[in-house]
Amino acid sequence: MPDCTFCRIVADEPDQHVFADDHTVAFLDTSPLFHGHLLVVTREHVVRLDDLDPDHLRPLFVTVQRGIRTLERELGAPGAFVANNNTVSQSVPHLHVHVVPRRPKDGLKGFFWPRTRYAEGEREGMRDRLRDAWAPAPGA
Amino acid sequence: MPDCTFCRIVADEPDQHVFADDHTVAFLDTSPLFHGHLLVVTREHVVRLDDLDPDHLRPLFVTVQRGIRTLERELGAPGAFVANNNTVSQSVPHLHVHVVPRRPKDGLKGFFWPRTRYAEGEREGMRDRLRDAWAPAPGA
Repeated sequence: MPDCTFCRIVADEPDQHVFADDHTVAFLDTSPLFHGHLLVVTREHVVRLDDLDPDHLRPLFVTVQRGIRTLERELGAPGAFVANNNTVSQSVPHLHVHVVPRRPKDGLKGFFWPRTRYAEGEREGMRDRLRDAWAPAPGA
Repeated sequence: MPDCTFCRIVADEPDQHVFADDHTVAFLDTSPLFHGHLLVVTREHVVRLDDLDPDHLRPLFVTVQRGIRTLERELGAPGAFVANNNTVSQSVPHLHVHVVPRRPKDGLKGFFWPRTRYAEGEREGMRDRLRDAWAPAPGA
């Protein structure tokens, strides 16, 4: 896609690549949550995770698995956070998965899960709604 | 696994299931970020995303794709956040992927990306380290 920042990194900026294979490219986020924060993108220009052909899910997430292991081993981090924003909070409209090294007390947990609650009966009502509305697989 | 909360939901609590297929179960998080917040789990007990046999990535993330579409369509949300914590911040040691409906100005963005920076040259050094250390695929 012309004017797509991530298509440009994929095609024209191999210097940035930490890893590349036939389906994916991994590179460092320029504004990391923590140093080592990777973005794993598809070579193919799709915008959202649910836009991706299900046949391409495996290679995308194999690269994510390898990114998790690389960060943990190389940086001595005991954990990793994997995240993907679709449309809302998605700064670049090209599918990307964040892989971020995590350590206990690194400051991310406290603000990260400001959990709410369901009132009595609300959870069951939501369950029934979503059951009835469950979407078919993309491309199915 | 005995004593695993999510194995129990998978095997013994079908009332909670929003969706279930041969590989995965989706159900509502009891302490949601926003109402409708789903957890997608593997039927198989593995702890982390990088513990999963790569052959099982496709069915896991097809269910995530369907969850995204279901939440957006049914709840009128324009976006969805997909996240997976491995070890650090992972409350239940059974692989699970959060799928959360998102709306502009829902309050999540501001605290969610407290980005940092790389000093001059640090990003290139990190790129080289991670390139050299890149892990093989799980099971490979």
